[in-house]
Amino acid sequence: MIMSVLFYVGIVAEAMSGAVAAGRYKVDLFGVFFIAFATALGGGSIRDVMLDHYPLLWIANPHYVYVVAISALIATRLAYYIDRLERFFLILDALGLAVFSTLGAKIAISLGHGFTVAMISGMVTGAFGGILRDVFCNTLPLILRKELYAVIAMLCGGLHWFLYPYLGEDLATTLAILCGFVLRILAIKYKISLPIFSFEKHQ
Amino acid sequence: MIMSVLFYVGIVAEAMSGAVAAGRYKVDLFGVFFIAFATALGGGSIRDVMLDHYPLLWIANPHYVYVVAISALIATRLAYYIDRLERFFLILDALGLAVFSTLGAKIAISLGHGFTVAMISGMVTGAFGGILRDVFCNTLPLILRKELYAVIAMLCGGLHWFLYPYLGEDLATTLAILCGFVLRILAIKYKISLPIFSFEKHQ
Amino acid sequence: MIMSVLFYVGIVAEAMSGAVAAGRYKVDLFGVFFIAFATALGGGSIRDVMLDHYPLLWIANPHYVYVVAISALIATRLAYYIDRLERFFLILDALGLAVFSTLGAKIAISLGHGFTVAMISGMVTGAFGGILRDVFCNTLPLILRKELYAVIAMLCGGLHWFLYPYLGEDLATTLAILCGFVLRILAIKYKISLPIFSFEKHQ
Repeated sequence: MIMSVLFYVGIVAEAMSGAVAAGRYKVDLFGVFFIAFATALGGGSIRDVMLDHYPLLWIANPHYVYVVAISALIATRLAYYIDRLERFFLILDALGLAVFSTLGAKIAISLGHGFTVAMISGMVTGAFGGILRDVFCNTLPLILRKELYAVIAMLCGGLHWFLYPYLGEDLATTLAILCGFVLRILAIKYKISLPIFSFEKHQ
Repeated sequence: MIMSVLFYVGIVAEAMSGAVAAGRYKVDLFGVFFIAFATALGGGSIRDVMLDHYPLLWIANPHYVYVVAISALIATRLAYYIDRLERFFLILDALGLAVFSTLGAKIAISLGHGFTVAMISGMVTGAFGGILRDVFCNTLPLILRKELYAVIAMLCGGLHWFLYPYLGEDLATTLAILCGFVLRILAIKYKISLPIFSFEKHQ
Repeated sequence: MIMSVLFYVGIVAEAMSGAVAAGRYKVDLFGVFFIAFATALGGGSIRDVMLDHYPLLWIANPHYVYVVAISALIATRLAYYIDRLERFFLILDALGLAVFSTLGAKIAISLGHGFTVAMISGMVTGAFGGILRDVFCNTLPLILRKELYAVIAMLCGGLHWFLYPYLGEDLATTLAILCGFVLRILAIKYKISLPIFSFEKHQ
């Protein structure tokens, strides 16, 4: 139940942040929906294709499409306020990241995959939506560049894999989500990030 | 039979328009083929992967690959004329859009999916080729930005879903294609488009 | 055995060249891994999804993920030297291209596909990693623009298809790889490339 609520919170937050980001590129209403959809459901879709886990999450539950569409529509109306409430949305986004990644790892584990695939499945579910959003918006994906975003997604996935044989599904899930959420908030607050690799080829 | 002819017309038109568009980015001949292929067959391929509908259309019918390649090659020779005949090609493209989208919805319905998935399957089949073309050409996808392109693709899909239980497959297909085609032509003629959402984040 | 060694050489070379290329975009360490992964394993993954050939190569063999990660990490430390040893890496890359493409065609053939699909499977396996790298780095894919890269990948695939009924798997594979490798080296040495198609739409 709680997972389900958190999952919807995550989808709404990602759809809204995708829609607001799309505003920068002067897209039309369809563009807003498309980018919101890619941001909120793209990561899970790529994961499902990657793991041969059909039907895709939003095909099994088509009402997600409308949750995304309505969230995106509301976001275009309230963009000014969403942007001002940035801190609040960063918290929702951190929650979404932790929930999506842990769920992604759970799906990989339920299909019989091991640590590496669970971790990557978590990363793809949590972080690939943002990558798709930026690819479609024709900018360098932000998460390749800063903040412990994808790393935390991998961590949630890996942590769940380590914990669930000892603690059981529910407790492992809760801990993985909590850890990911707290780490993400700390990473934002203290601007923790990975070292940048900068290198210019000679010519 | 007529569907089949319209389908080829659509593929040829999309491949040619993809090839001509590629010329702007100074790609080589392989690049022309690649972009033409992505434009003409990319949408259908993404749809097939999304719906777990294997083999992909061009793997089941490899001769489509040559239809695309020959169309693209001809387009590089006749680019000047194709560009001057823009109006004629817009009509072919509108036809292709309507045919592809309706077919996409039919495939989703034949796999047992409902209204939402049929509509999105139509949209992906009809409009994703253009999105892939622009992603590979490193520009912001045009259809996120203007003209009722993707919306008409969704409409064809949704309309077919609504009509076929009452009118049967053939009539529903014909009507969906006709409606999509006429709407697209009207949208071009009267420059009808969705409202633009423009929003700059504060920093 | 030799194939296996060549395959690892190919993965290491592609991962390193991907990582060095990523340095240009000032990505963080995760970004380096991501781009290296897309470059080295992206082509094979797209091929597997396209052919419904599950599990994906790196899901069946998760240790590839670590081979890529370690190669990428080493590349960030040794970027200066890798860049100076450009000629050596071009040779490794040419080898990787020939090996990957021929393997890609073999997989398509083993699934019962014919000439066209084998050729495209070779092309996707050998060349799509570089396309994904450039799409994620937000630049126009290099291989759409110059050098007989993708064409050689198609050639390896097609050649293997032609030869294996007469010469058997092993000899056909060896010859396809050798031909691809030599052609790629010649194409680099003599700057052989396809004609460029340049066309500006009137407006």
